[in-house]
Amino acid sequence: MRIIGVDPGLRNLGWGVIEAEGSRMVHVANGICRSDSALPLALRLQSIFRALSDVIAEFAPEAAAIEETFVNRDGQGTLKLGQARGVALLALAEAGLAPGEYAPNTVKKAVVGTGHAAKGQIAHMVAHYFPAAKLAGADAADALAIAICHSHHSGPGAAKLAAALRAAG
Amino acid sequence: MRIIGVDPGLRNLGWGVIEAEGSRMVHVANGICRSDSALPLALRLQSIFRALSDVIAEFAPEAAAIEETFVNRDGQGTLKLGQARGVALLALAEAGLAPGEYAPNTVKKAVVGTGHAAKGQIAHMVAHYFPAAKLAGADAADALAIAICHSHHSGPGAAKLAAALRAAG
Repeated sequence: MRIIGVDPGLRNLGWGVIEAEGSRMVHVANGICRSDSALPLALRLQSIFRALSDVIAEFAPEAAAIEETFVNRDGQGTLKLGQARGVALLALAEAGLAPGEYAPNTVKKAVVGTGHAAKGQIAHMVAHYFPAAKLAGADAADALAIAICHSHHSGPGAAKLAAALRAAG
Repeated sequence: MRIIGVDPGLRNLGWGVIEAEGSRMVHVANGICRSDSALPLALRLQSIFRALSDVIAEFAPEAAAIEETFVNRDGQGTLKLGQARGVALLALAEAGLAPGEYAPNTVKKAVVGTGHAAKGQIAHMVAHYFPAAKLAGADAADALAIAICHSHHSGPGAAKLAAALRAAG
């Protein structure tokens, strides 16, 4: 099953596509969709939406996963991230994908083995999983980690559910 | 100039369309796009995006305005609203509209005359502006108020800028 993982952000939105069969995983592609902070907000969101939609069209994932957003005291930061996450979820839904959502600690635990891993450890472990892959950056490594996490949590039942949702259109 | 105002929300997204020529304003339409809270988040965002896109296609506004989101201590609420606001901004951008953004107090001041008006006062004043209009609810009244506010703030210069942005595609 081909899985896309998305690490949402307004400035840098990371994405990673893997192919998972049972416990075997292969890296397909990864990258970062960037938006120009000089543009008006609506156009930044449009540029992220279009770039992610292009990635989905190119790599045709059958399943998707996205990180649950960590809500902190910085209300303006939460709002910015929420807006970016909204258009990322929309791009997935428009492609018929029903994304799994995972808390940051769940992603860390799936990839590093502990929920309290530092950001650097995730990139390190993702590089270990996919030694031949060239990582586009920390956000792309995070996105691959989210895809890995989803492959751990989604058995054949989850794949069937995703297919049924796509068929229901 | 035909203006759409949008009051973003995940459960209820209010919209209102007015026609403004100088200080003369005519009500065109108003309504609320609702999403079913039983659906997964990605599908709720998709349903809001599609409903608002349909409204824009039907009424063909030449300008748009949206409320600046009030960020409070409720991080989860801010995140939800941010996601809804993100897809609303995207729907406007996809239609070539560059929305003006106004703080709630600016909208209140434009419509009621003071920045400290209660929600009920806004609906009351909007009904006074457009006595023949049937208001779909408080969120739709707020959206009309945002459109009225934009008409106060956008002279011929703003209309020209919007036309140039549309031409630049």
